[in-house]
Amino acid sequence: MDDHTSWVALNLVPGVGRITFKKLVVYFGHPRDVLQAPIGQLLRVPGIGSKIAHAIVSFQAAPAVEREFRAVERYRCYIVTQEDRAYPPLLKTIDDPPPVLYVKGELGDPSWPAVALVGSRRPSTYGKVVAEQLARGLAAAQVTVVSGLARGIDSTAHGGALAGGGRTIAVLGCGLAYLYPPENRPLADRISQHGAVVSEFSMGSKPDRLNFPLRNRTISGFSLGTVVVEAGERSGALITAQWALEQGREVFAVPGNITAPMSRGTNRLIKMGAKLVERVEDILEELPPYAFGATPARASEEPRQASLPLEETPLLALLDPVEERHIDWIVERAGLPTGAVSALLLQLELDGRVTQLPGKFYLKALPY
Amino acid sequence: MDDHTSWVALNLVPGVGRITFKKLVVYFGHPRDVLQAPIGQLLRVPGIGSKIAHAIVSFQAAPAVEREFRAVERYRCYIVTQEDRAYPPLLKTIDDPPPVLYVKGELGDPSWPAVALVGSRRPSTYGKVVAEQLARGLAAAQVTVVSGLARGIDSTAHGGALAGGGRTIAVLGCGLAYLYPPENRPLADRISQHGAVVSEFSMGSKPDRLNFPLRNRTISGFSLGTVVVEAGERSGALITAQWALEQGREVFAVPGNITAPMSRGTNRLIKMGAKLVERVEDILEELPPYAFGATPARASEEPRQASLPLEETPLLALLDPVEERHIDWIVERAGLPTGAVSALLLQLELDGRVTQLPGKFYLKALPY
Repeated sequence: MDDHTSWVALNLVPGVGRITFKKLVVYFGHPRDVLQAPIGQLLRVPGIGSKIAHAIVSFQAAPAVEREFRAVERYRCYIVTQEDRAYPPLLKTIDDPPPVLYVKGELGDPSWPAVALVGSRRPSTYGKVVAEQLARGLAAAQVTVVSGLARGIDSTAHGGALAGGGRTIAVLGCGLAYLYPPENRPLADRISQHGAVVSEFSMGSKPDRLNFPLRNRTISGFSLGTVVVEAGERSGALITAQWALEQGREVFAVPGNITAPMSRGTNRLIKMGAKLVERVEDILEELPPYAFGATPARASEEPRQASLPLEETPLLALLDPVEERHIDWIVERAGLPTGAVSALLLQLELDGRVTQLPGKFYLKALPY
Repeated sequence: MDDHTSWVALNLVPGVGRITFKKLVVYFGHPRDVLQAPIGQLLRVPGIGSKIAHAIVSFQAAPAVEREFRAVERYRCYIVTQEDRAYPPLLKTIDDPPPVLYVKGELGDPSWPAVALVGSRRPSTYGKVVAEQLARGLAAAQVTVVSGLARGIDSTAHGGALAGGGRTIAVLGCGLAYLYPPENRPLADRISQHGAVVSEFSMGSKPDRLNFPLRNRTISGFSLGTVVVEAGERSGALITAQWALEQGREVFAVPGNITAPMSRGTNRLIKMGAKLVERVEDILEELPPYAFGATPARASEEPRQASLPLEETPLLALLDPVEERHIDWIVERAGLPTGAVSALLLQLELDGRVTQLPGKFYLKALPY
């Protein structure tokens, strides 16, 4: 079993959640070693009881993994583990990040800024209008909109980001094969073409009630900040905001009439210190400057096109938004020394007009 | 001309506003001395030009004051100067407080807490509902509601306080004889019976545009805090909030939908640090504890009746809410030593059940 597979396998062991997973990996060094450990050694891990230890040693990894990979293939997904470069670096910094992510679509460049937009499953018209506007605004500012694909504000947020020509990531509380709520299947398909549908749960996991607080934590973990648009007093969106706070991320809330039940949660968040959001700029101005280092300019800034030295523009014509080009291929056609091309590509990358992939491959950044 | 009259007279000199008034009194010590000063001395006061100096020496004080006092009598008002004990002590602490106040009604015990409730002249239904609720809540908590008698939120605030059986103070931007807006005359009459209608401008002053920012400053100066219920982006209520901030008072704002023009001012205030108000408790809990020392308990607290020692209650039966009783009169009927009666009255006063007037007269506090 290779390293990648061992991450997937350990994550499939019944009863092994992300906290247990972390304890085991901290103790043994790698999931591979956890799966090969004798029961006596497993029982020596602080916080590991005999139930979990027995579940691990009796786990039939090979057939379970094979079944899982078949499902992953059938649904045209893939799995990213914490060891993979594609694992979102921001998510990796939280306590107990999900060991593996099931992904349908593309997580995108790790340096692209992402903001969570969440809220009530039963929003008012006001909430839906505002969620749509903010999602479009974030999309226009090249910020990936992260949400939970739930009914209500979540769905509106994903839809607004797509309508704005932007990227969006849906984080599920069930497996990608299950996909809940079912009526959001068409939306999920569109999301996977302009971002990703993501789950930390194995393919067939049902939308268990206990999954959602974990899912909310992953939503905030993906994001530089969490914006709550509408939330009742006991909304799950408040849990996401709570996680964001614990993760040291920004918390934003859209105010509403104090007579509106769906604004109670957001007004309370503001009272507790969340930043009041009226316009998308209220969100953008709180994001760390590095968030925009590798993406096109904010919507409010001057277009950078005009300020680029002339020599850089022809390079862009050699690049494609879909087909990656190797630097050697670019140098050959650009008629410039490798050092100059490297410098120009770096400048373009910093300006957010080019994306560098591992191995010195380059893509032209999409204009959205 | 007596001291009281000299305050009124100097305030009537054309061109003498509260800033000039203060400069003159700081220099000469008393309005009486200002009015008797030769022009050469007046011109020596820093910031006093020849126009003002000439206006003072040529001012025909006696007939002007007589005219003014006749108007005051005709409208059954009275004048309180900064030298009078009835002048609100909180108002006196601001920079350049109004030298005199024209009052119709009763300013009330200086220790009673007061909060300003202000907002748009063109509120939405939401704003009116909230203003009414908050004013009633403040009234129930024995907090005097201060506002500007303007159309819209101001009128609703006064009306809510009256409907809640509480006290309210209307601060005008014109003279008491003018009373603007005219349709609020019946409301002003009711206010003067359960609080006061107040103006810093002489009886016949018209509602000059320049008066209103000064009036707003007096509103916030009267109050421990200012609550803005609804305000457009350029509402005068925001000026009142600004004054409150400069005076070191609390600023509160009621949030609203970000799509509502009348909530733009309040949402912006919250973004700038004003406390978000959902319920009247959000206001009460920010008021300094001493604010409630001399008034009945907050609405949310246990009724204090039960906790009082038995001996105190009979004393209350000797007091009246309208007819003031002298301590000698009370001692005689209570059959207790003077020291004991004094102590019990002090306790009742601290519990907010009795009000002490100058000269050891006592009133029973009203149950509202």
